[in-house]
Amino acid sequence: MINEKSRISCVKDNDRKFLTMDIAKQAKCLFEELAALDKNNIGINRLSYGKRETAALDIIEHKARCFGLHTYRDCAANLVVVLEGTDPALPVVCCGSHMDSVPQGGNYDGAAGIIAGLLAIAHLKTREFRPRRSIHLLVLRGEESAAFGIPYIGSSLLFGLATGNMLDLTDSATGRPLRECLYRVGADVDNIEKGTVITNPENIKIWLELHIEQGPYLVNRNEPAAVVTSIRGNRRYRNIMCIGQGGHSGTVPNNLRHDPLLAVSELLVTMERKCLEMNDAGHDIVHTTGLMGTNATNQSITRIPDTVSFSFEMRSDNIDTLSEFDDFFKTTVKNISLRRGVAFSLGTCQAVPPVTLDPDVITLLSNSFSRNGLQCTRMPSGAGHDTGIFTTVGIPSGMIFVRNRNGSHTPDEHMEISDFLLGQKILADTIKYVANS
Amino acid sequence: MINEKSRISCVKDNDRKFLTMDIAKQAKCLFEELAALDKNNIGINRLSYGKRETAALDIIEHKARCFGLHTYRDCAANLVVVLEGTDPALPVVCCGSHMDSVPQGGNYDGAAGIIAGLLAIAHLKTREFRPRRSIHLLVLRGEESAAFGIPYIGSSLLFGLATGNMLDLTDSATGRPLRECLYRVGADVDNIEKGTVITNPENIKIWLELHIEQGPYLVNRNEPAAVVTSIRGNRRYRNIMCIGQGGHSGTVPNNLRHDPLLAVSELLVTMERKCLEMNDAGHDIVHTTGLMGTNATNQSITRIPDTVSFSFEMRSDNIDTLSEFDDFFKTTVKNISLRRGVAFSLGTCQAVPPVTLDPDVITLLSNSFSRNGLQCTRMPSGAGHDTGIFTTVGIPSGMIFVRNRNGSHTPDEHMEISDFLLGQKILADTIKYVANS
Repeated sequence: MINEKSRISCVKDNDRKFLTMDIAKQAKCLFEELAALDKNNIGINRLSYGKRETAALDIIEHKARCFGLHTYRDCAANLVVVLEGTDPALPVVCCGSHMDSVPQGGNYDGAAGIIAGLLAIAHLKTREFRPRRSIHLLVLRGEESAAFGIPYIGSSLLFGLATGNMLDLTDSATGRPLRECLYRVGADVDNIEKGTVITNPENIKIWLELHIEQGPYLVNRNEPAAVVTSIRGNRRYRNIMCIGQGGHSGTVPNNLRHDPLLAVSELLVTMERKCLEMNDAGHDIVHTTGLMGTNATNQSITRIPDTVSFSFEMRSDNIDTLSEFDDFFKTTVKNISLRRGVAFSLGTCQAVPPVTLDPDVITLLSNSFSRNGLQCTRMPSGAGHDTGIFTTVGIPSGMIFVRNRNGSHTPDEHMEISDFLLGQKILADTIKYVANS
Repeated sequence: MINEKSRISCVKDNDRKFLTMDIAKQAKCLFEELAALDKNNIGINRLSYGKRETAALDIIEHKARCFGLHTYRDCAANLVVVLEGTDPALPVVCCGSHMDSVPQGGNYDGAAGIIAGLLAIAHLKTREFRPRRSIHLLVLRGEESAAFGIPYIGSSLLFGLATGNMLDLTDSATGRPLRECLYRVGADVDNIEKGTVITNPENIKIWLELHIEQGPYLVNRNEPAAVVTSIRGNRRYRNIMCIGQGGHSGTVPNNLRHDPLLAVSELLVTMERKCLEMNDAGHDIVHTTGLMGTNATNQSITRIPDTVSFSFEMRSDNIDTLSEFDDFFKTTVKNISLRRGVAFSLGTCQAVPPVTLDPDVITLLSNSFSRNGLQCTRMPSGAGHDTGIFTTVGIPSGMIFVRNRNGSHTPDEHMEISDFLLGQKILADTIKYVANS
């Protein structure tokens, strides 16, 4: 049995061993240490403001200290790792990502950006390189915070963006209000309540986030990494109803029917064709119907359905493209309803505008790709990120995507360490470049 | 307050008044008397082997006796009304339909054929016309017997078609076995159990059933009535699963998706186009998907669905057309699954062959249309009927459809008495013709 004293000495030995590893082994070791927190679970479960999220922050903080870096927790209980520059009064270079995950998520979503940033700073420190500007690694909490009804809580709190009743929102899993969850992980809730700005955007020169891609674009293009140009906005019809005319499945000729299911099927196929045409013409647009169903109260194999309900979401990096696709959607709905004698009730359309990332930061990152002999693929991000918040408050921000097999928000998520190292190199290179500017 | 004696005398007065009415008023009066059984309910609820079905038989029996006709209940508790012919040993002319209804059904579905038959026989009796062959009106129970899991119970029992455990089937509403339900309405369950044939098919010269149309075909053609040529058979895939690949709605370009919902939408739109093409080429085919839904356990507005389940039913009066459409369905499923990278699990296909009605009976009915100065429209029946059972046991059988607005199996069902009288005239004319043959 190992007593407390020997355990500590064992950890110290491990730390010494860790510091002698090459960067690939260090990255692998860190990912493994994080994954071990969930060794008894299905996938990764570092829930926002939960115990495993805190334990993961502790792991990163411990390693940062082993590298001799300064660390602290901010008012919102995010972890900050600091490499002080020669001119600490200058706006700082910030990098990082989020430490939390969705339930049964993957180990790289968020953590990859944190480990990439930590190793970038650590290797400057190891080589005793002292940049002009200070470099901060932000290990953010509460990005995958859908259980509270909103995402990006950790980064929103940085900039005093806690709106109205945000602290009253409850975790759908535990019923605990966000206020209590923040308090439990050591946040300064009184200050947050007052809308205190933890970080003044003017004090940040640049925000850089490395993240796994959450789709198959890079896998399909056979590229290890890319520069992100924008974060897609969306329009969402959460609950559309198509109302037709029910009837006996055997007795109504198809040309006399007002079948809502065939109307919706035609609508979806038409929208898919339009989407692919617009993609071919170079426009960024995706659309999804995630929910669809015939009327559960009277559906039958031998009954023409009377109503069908469904959702319709479209995303694009360009607001004009969103408008064009949405207009085509509404025109198609109108044409189909007239021709088929059915009615559509579209309900409310929720709209989130796209976020265009800073062109100068895109150029900086692209230049780094070139300096490292890599082709620079540019692509929009389909999912939202903390980077959207940094951009919204006026901080020049950029993102690097790393290829990811098997999809996102699933334990099957898979990133090659060799791909990660290429992305990490671009990140480290750009951090160093801007920190000396 | 009316005492028992005066109630009886009152009924007698009403009966005398009824007998003096013209046929239109008699029909209207009979339909109203049946509808009054459900005056406190939504729609008509003469459930198979239920109290209101029995009460409706009692009404018809009472009126038949007023006309001086002989009546009795057979072993299966069906009502039989008899006008004896001059040569009662000859195979008899049979007409009739079913007395029961679906829950919240209409008043004409089934009852129209019974009232048409009763008035046909009654007016021969009134005019003291004695046909050569006896004429039997069969007032059948248990046609809309879906609550027991099978239809056409009343007519099946006539011909000893009670298979295996049929009497053990339970009413889904009450949990009572069919055996008990039959016993409660006075059926001879012991004889039924032995498979006794109540009516030998060889003793029936012809079966004629007038019925409301259960679709909008005649409304659309602006015709009051039609001769039925066949009863559509069907092929049913009750629970098909299309398996694709789920994913984040924002991050997967549409051309890289394996979206089962778009696959099924394309399938349905393709099948509809094929159906309409085949209809234009003169083939009888309808198809319906009554059930469809995305995966309830993981569906989300922002998630590409991973699976979609749906039903697919096709009906035709021609077995080759059914095969052609089914083959096209399976080929389309295969093509779509290859092109889109999704998998379809079709499950079992249940098949019921079409029933072709007797060509000689169709000619007889068509001739009657002509004799009465009416154009004779011919059409298949999309729904099943007792006539299918009569045909199956080898009895030359025919059907007359009467125009019906607002659909079937709904309280909105609507038949004009003038349309009914035209159909009734064809029925009476044909009965008289065959009864003298």
